[in-house]
Amino acid sequence: MPAKSEKRNMVIAQSGGPSMVINQSLVGAVMAARRNGGIGRIYGAVHGIDGILSENFVDLRKVPAKKLEVVAGTPSSALGSVRRKPTEEDCLKIFEVLRKLGIGYFFYIGGNDSAETVHIVNTVARRNRFDVKCFHIPKTIDNDLRQNDHTPGFGSAARFVALAFMGDNLDNLALGGVKINIVMGRNAGFLTAASALGRRHQDDGPHLVYLPERPFGMEQFAEDVKGVMDRLGRCVVAVSEGICDKTGAPILNSGEVDSHGNLQLSGTGALGDLLAKEIKARLAIRRVRADTFGYLQRSFPTIASTSDSMEAFGAGMAAVMNAVSGKVDSASVALVRRPGRKYAVEYKCVSLRSVAGNTRSMPASFINRAGNDVTRAFIEYAMPLVGDLPEMGRLI
Amino acid sequence: MPAKSEKRNMVIAQSGGPSMVINQSLVGAVMAARRNGGIGRIYGAVHGIDGILSENFVDLRKVPAKKLEVVAGTPSSALGSVRRKPTEEDCLKIFEVLRKLGIGYFFYIGGNDSAETVHIVNTVARRNRFDVKCFHIPKTIDNDLRQNDHTPGFGSAARFVALAFMGDNLDNLALGGVKINIVMGRNAGFLTAASALGRRHQDDGPHLVYLPERPFGMEQFAEDVKGVMDRLGRCVVAVSEGICDKTGAPILNSGEVDSHGNLQLSGTGALGDLLAKEIKARLAIRRVRADTFGYLQRSFPTIASTSDSMEAFGAGMAAVMNAVSGKVDSASVALVRRPGRKYAVEYKCVSLRSVAGNTRSMPASFINRAGNDVTRAFIEYAMPLVGDLPEMGRLI
Repeated sequence: MPAKSEKRNMVIAQSGGPSMVINQSLVGAVMAARRNGGIGRIYGAVHGIDGILSENFVDLRKVPAKKLEVVAGTPSSALGSVRRKPTEEDCLKIFEVLRKLGIGYFFYIGGNDSAETVHIVNTVARRNRFDVKCFHIPKTIDNDLRQNDHTPGFGSAARFVALAFMGDNLDNLALGGVKINIVMGRNAGFLTAASALGRRHQDDGPHLVYLPERPFGMEQFAEDVKGVMDRLGRCVVAVSEGICDKTGAPILNSGEVDSHGNLQLSGTGALGDLLAKEIKARLAIRRVRADTFGYLQRSFPTIASTSDSMEAFGAGMAAVMNAVSGKVDSASVALVRRPGRKYAVEYKCVSLRSVAGNTRSMPASFINRAGNDVTRAFIEYAMPLVGDLPEMGRLI
Repeated sequence: MPAKSEKRNMVIAQSGGPSMVINQSLVGAVMAARRNGGIGRIYGAVHGIDGILSENFVDLRKVPAKKLEVVAGTPSSALGSVRRKPTEEDCLKIFEVLRKLGIGYFFYIGGNDSAETVHIVNTVARRNRFDVKCFHIPKTIDNDLRQNDHTPGFGSAARFVALAFMGDNLDNLALGGVKINIVMGRNAGFLTAASALGRRHQDDGPHLVYLPERPFGMEQFAEDVKGVMDRLGRCVVAVSEGICDKTGAPILNSGEVDSHGNLQLSGTGALGDLLAKEIKARLAIRRVRADTFGYLQRSFPTIASTSDSMEAFGAGMAAVMNAVSGKVDSASVALVRRPGRKYAVEYKCVSLRSVAGNTRSMPASFINRAGNDVTRAFIEYAMPLVGDLPEMGRLI
């Protein structure tokens, strides 16, 4: 057992799906910790809690600041990631390692499943009177964390989706036909809705936007596409990977489930191909194409949103500062939008329980009545998160 | 018939698949023409030769220079595109329109099929003693035009692919397993090969690169993947959409063919899903994912290669300047790399016949002996075309 001192060591790790800015949160936390007298060693656990269990750590106090800066701007999870829900036994093993290393702070960056992991670790620690301050730092491109106005990672993924649709809308304008693009986001439609952010001309696509918050029917879909084709001679469609029919069953069921009970939705083109086939079969349209944006939405370099990058960095800092303040023993850091016309956010500590496990979805005010597009309210909500979009020049 | 004068009007159009920089070539040609005393009206035909046949034109002399500048930096074909091989009858109708409008220059921006269109128009014109100077301006992300060191559009698409793999390599490093990415390029492997341009560390992916220039066997593929998995515990694979088996039959056969006889390869995730399924079935690997990059490779805004943008602009200018010089009556503009250590290109007029219809593929010196990776020679060839790539920060 290490000698008692004012300083406590910390461990930080990343979990769940990577994002373009999850390393900003890591570096924000590390920079805050390095400047804080209350924190000793900074252990970076490799591949989330797996790295604690196997004692596989990076010494984050020793990494040069210049290198940390490059890491902050690099997509994906620099410490590696994991999808693992800890058992009680895992927790007790984790505490053994933490006790041995004098670690009194546990920071975990991730989405609602990662918040659940922190909540489990925290609950088992309290029950066993093990003294560790547990903090969850938010991250998810799905934007589905409760208590948050929006989550670090979403703005950059939304920027990718908006840019992709701006280019693809012009590709479709040039060659015509129906183009279907499948967008990530699981059971929340925010990321798919971001497809609409780059529309400037009346006839710009996406012309139809299908979200998991509204039941998806193949017949209505074909009718909607026909309507746009009759009007414009072309049609760009944004479809969430998580769309379900009116019974709540996913349109695509891969049958593969992770340890948190999540169905595999990404990493396959099957949903896009299924929808393209249906349109070809139901409507006599020559050119029908489908793309599935896939993992590029969370990992593409050089296009991260500036505000998203800064907010992710700030969330990491806020977690460390709240932890060392001694005012809270455990929390999830949440992003709250300040009231007022000028966009600004602040960080709030909320209970782990209120964020763990469950998710939120798009409010009804963001979805049009027909359930096939977004509203002005969504555009106003999302624009500050993605940043300025480039002007597209059109001649026709 | 218009009165004889020194000035001749021109028509310009875009054809085939769009690219990130095909509008640079359009604007380069228009800017050169606007500054040249020998050219009168500048007709932009909408949707290629379809726009000539239907007399659907944009007056490109009237578009403000500032707007043209924005168009130049915008992906996709701003005049719209078409995939149509003209018949003799089409050509005679085209000449009627050209005669009526006093058009003496025909510029067509596109790939080898578009060069074939120009070649057909030129041949029928000569036979009918119709006086029109026919010029082809090169464009293809596939990089498969003969006579060219490389083609406008390739560098930017290659930059997209390189960046995508840099991010996806880190995503795979974070979560492990096998990741298969399908890349465009038809029967030429250049674009798929560009996946390797961002590798910096010994263990960076892509770890395997499959090109259409080498026969693809499912058994060898599974063996290769197993080898990488055994060594690194993860594997990123780049696969060309155009891979064929040893009999030359495409691994994916969509059955859809265009008027130039090209098989539809893009706009479906079927090849990636097929390969992922095979790997899951043959090897006991938990996490196997496939993404098909699709149309984003040619249409994603904001990431175009600087040298590619400038060269595309220059190719448009070169076509107009050669046409008005009176030295050649018809030609395809080709990009030639100057000898010497410092990268530089020049434009050369070559015969339409030598570029039309046929394509080229990767030279053997660009492919490793095992047929599952690229060589140093390819990296050196391609790096100047994509421009500087960002540094990726790694902690593990």
